[in-house]
Amino acid sequence: MCKVDLNSDLGESFGAYTIGLDSEVIQYVSSANVACGYHAGDPLVMDKTVAAAKSAGVAVGAHPGYPDLMGFGRRNMVCSPKEVKAYIQYQLGALMAFTAAHGVKLQHCKPHGSLYNMAAKDMDLSLAIAEAIVEVDKNIILMGLAGSKMLEAGRQMGLRVASEVFADRAYQADGSLVPRKQPGAVIHDKDEAIARTIRMVTEGKVTAITGEEVSIDAHSICVHGDNPSAVEFVKNIRASLSAQGVEIAPIAEIV
Amino acid sequence: MCKVDLNSDLGESFGAYTIGLDSEVIQYVSSANVACGYHAGDPLVMDKTVAAAKSAGVAVGAHPGYPDLMGFGRRNMVCSPKEVKAYIQYQLGALMAFTAAHGVKLQHCKPHGSLYNMAAKDMDLSLAIAEAIVEVDKNIILMGLAGSKMLEAGRQMGLRVASEVFADRAYQADGSLVPRKQPGAVIHDKDEAIARTIRMVTEGKVTAITGEEVSIDAHSICVHGDNPSAVEFVKNIRASLSAQGVEIAPIAEIV
Amino acid sequence: MCKVDLNSDLGESFGAYTIGLDSEVIQYVSSANVACGYHAGDPLVMDKTVAAAKSAGVAVGAHPGYPDLMGFGRRNMVCSPKEVKAYIQYQLGALMAFTAAHGVKLQHCKPHGSLYNMAAKDMDLSLAIAEAIVEVDKNIILMGLAGSKMLEAGRQMGLRVASEVFADRAYQADGSLVPRKQPGAVIHDKDEAIARTIRMVTEGKVTAITGEEVSIDAHSICVHGDNPSAVEFVKNIRASLSAQGVEIAPIAEIV
Amino acid sequence: MCKVDLNSDLGESFGAYTIGLDSEVIQYVSSANVACGYHAGDPLVMDKTVAAAKSAGVAVGAHPGYPDLMGFGRRNMVCSPKEVKAYIQYQLGALMAFTAAHGVKLQHCKPHGSLYNMAAKDMDLSLAIAEAIVEVDKNIILMGLAGSKMLEAGRQMGLRVASEVFADRAYQADGSLVPRKQPGAVIHDKDEAIARTIRMVTEGKVTAITGEEVSIDAHSICVHGDNPSAVEFVKNIRASLSAQGVEIAPIAEIV
Repeated sequence: MCKVDLNSDLGESFGAYTIGLDSEVIQYVSSANVACGYHAGDPLVMDKTVAAAKSAGVAVGAHPGYPDLMGFGRRNMVCSPKEVKAYIQYQLGALMAFTAAHGVKLQHCKPHGSLYNMAAKDMDLSLAIAEAIVEVDKNIILMGLAGSKMLEAGRQMGLRVASEVFADRAYQADGSLVPRKQPGAVIHDKDEAIARTIRMVTEGKVTAITGEEVSIDAHSICVHGDNPSAVEFVKNIRASLSAQGVEIAPIAEIV
Repeated sequence: MCKVDLNSDLGESFGAYTIGLDSEVIQYVSSANVACGYHAGDPLVMDKTVAAAKSAGVAVGAHPGYPDLMGFGRRNMVCSPKEVKAYIQYQLGALMAFTAAHGVKLQHCKPHGSLYNMAAKDMDLSLAIAEAIVEVDKNIILMGLAGSKMLEAGRQMGLRVASEVFADRAYQADGSLVPRKQPGAVIHDKDEAIARTIRMVTEGKVTAITGEEVSIDAHSICVHGDNPSAVEFVKNIRASLSAQGVEIAPIAEIV
Repeated sequence: MCKVDLNSDLGESFGAYTIGLDSEVIQYVSSANVACGYHAGDPLVMDKTVAAAKSAGVAVGAHPGYPDLMGFGRRNMVCSPKEVKAYIQYQLGALMAFTAAHGVKLQHCKPHGSLYNMAAKDMDLSLAIAEAIVEVDKNIILMGLAGSKMLEAGRQMGLRVASEVFADRAYQADGSLVPRKQPGAVIHDKDEAIARTIRMVTEGKVTAITGEEVSIDAHSICVHGDNPSAVEFVKNIRASLSAQGVEIAPIAEIV
Repeated sequence: MCKVDLNSDLGESFGAYTIGLDSEVIQYVSSANVACGYHAGDPLVMDKTVAAAKSAGVAVGAHPGYPDLMGFGRRNMVCSPKEVKAYIQYQLGALMAFTAAHGVKLQHCKPHGSLYNMAAKDMDLSLAIAEAIVEVDKNIILMGLAGSKMLEAGRQMGLRVASEVFADRAYQADGSLVPRKQPGAVIHDKDEAIARTIRMVTEGKVTAITGEEVSIDAHSICVHGDNPSAVEFVKNIRASLSAQGVEIAPIAEIV
């Protein structure tokens, strides 16, 4: 039977600031990427988010980012691989204190925002991330963009890797995402997005923006809980996958 | 044979900023309290400090503080016990990533600065700290001021605790420190400081500022590496203790 | 004719985080207290908030706080008067760059949260705040709690001061607020809150929780835009004051 | 008579962290670039540095950087021009509170580290910086790398600009610096560095690494106070310039 993971970024609130409909979206996903205090999140939020994930039966992953709260980790920063490795270890460990306190295992690590995007194309950064994980706990799964350097680095370092796909993004013939600035980068039609996702999961194929059939590993689908309509979409994609006989399961059961 | 631990705050540098003669003082101590990125320290510094401690055969402890880099954790902040618990867990975990990466165990946790001082007199804060540790790893030793609420809370929560004394501070008849603002609070004569320390360690006694003989547990002595003369003092206190047949050993071998 | 100022804390969003219904509440107030990047706010938010205030014809004030973004400036921090003075100057200046850029004057300074509350009872802190303002621009009005040390310090340093009252808080016989922890501290009945406010503004009197008639200066009323019902209350209080012939005007026209 | 400015980055200490021999180097320079709390510096340090500059008769400039204390503003961050403009205004204003408090004028603005280097080659960033200054106070001089986009943007926006040269750096035939990674980028011979500087100041010429004679505007020379030997070099360059009849004067007297 075909399985796929649904992952969502959670625990991005900070102090008095609330962001994301965490308590709603958490019901529909199988893996939570928990912010670790650098680009978002704080210790109270991390504690609460791990507790909520445990209670919902959702697997917990770390979602480390650049030390840029003001930019929410979405701005490229030129950090050395050595810096990135240390930042990843710091954030992984910080979250692992809360998983230990709640008696759950840290399932995976998915870098956030600009760190995710920069590492996807940069083998040195990706190796720094993979090394960081291996040294802390080699059982942690590295989740990264399908076809990216991050997955290649993870495999090279002996980690299990999870290949992530996006329901609402167009792909190029080489399997990479169509950059957001280009026309057609985002699939606005929700039914089309769901249909494409089902095909990625069940057939391992996606049609590129230029028409070619592309092979793609869809271990996990990234979904969002930013607003009510995003949550509605998560609910729908989950229902549609189930209707096609696809089981939703945490990535530890898939890769 | 009589044993005592010498502990020092290390890894308080941050980014381009260097503070403390870490590489000198580390040769003379048995336990290092490593800053965890809140009041001081950053991931690169933490990594380097854990590596240096391992290499010097010095046990590693966490030195968590208030989230106040600008005030170096030395300003009282009224945080709730729940906040303090989460801050301790965050910082413990962050450091444990680096101890895991270097294959060493986290021996102890000694709160820093204002957190140390506030918790010493506040059972709720002390219990929050002890609970934080128990939930993350109940083998971590809690180090606190001799006679403080922190040790009481640690014992109550089932932790091993280490009672810390100060070589250069005067004590009151109840075993507490003479507040810094009072005359005579600091012992300026270094020979006297060393003699008092040896007596605390070997006899478990100290003479209060008002003349009484006070019982005191001296599991660990706090020493500093701020400047060359401080390092010289550490060297001397170590030599004097050894000359009296006192063995210098990490607190895990003592409590 | 009787006049009063309506002030609200605005510009407390930060980076990707939005807080407060600024664009709604700004229509009903006469003075905006703009966060300055320490407890809340960032440069983009400050720029946007000053522009919005100018566009709405609302006077701009600084709302400096403790350097505690994680605690939103609501946790007591024991900073020295010298530190507080420098923090106030830093934040005042930062905001004045944006008022200069938009061609408006900085009308007032109202410290935020714990800084406001601690200074209300602490003459040294209050003098530090007043000195900070005098040295930067002696035309800035210092806004503080009615009957507080802050107003006393402001007057002593030669500043114009604005006495702030709260519509929904009970007062003690000495003119101070009933602490939030005591029963009856908050007036939940909105009509009663409005009636009390009108009396404070038009008669300069408020009935203490213990029944006494207390004299009070009501130069400015603090209102909130945290949620739709708070905004509704601001709209109502403004309409009720106008119906009583009270003119809503920025404090520079009042004190 | 020929004049040149000697500028140095000062006030980069932070909290308990001290960096730079400010009190020594300040005696030999004519302009101080004062850090503004983003990449370095804090309000107490800014206050003290402005006071020291005033006392030494040294002109004060702002030295704004990226919001990256951990990286000391030396890491490239991809911020939008709008973000950079707001960050510059925030930092300019913050420092101007202290210049106002001490009764001195803010003479210039010299961006720091990666912001300086990125803007040197990026007209959009440079225009954002120049606009930030014009809106806050159009009398502030913009200091930037000789031949850079920053000077071009400043002139285009109607600002006075100061062209900065480096005593110990090699230049390319187009007037740009030889990148640090290339051999010969740094002039290690101190006498040669001084001789080249004198020629840049008195003749407006420098010999490129490839042998060509290049015209260069040397309004200000960047010097450092990181260590005793750097301070010694500043003393020597000042003496050598004076011996050649070159007057050391703040850039406001030069451009």
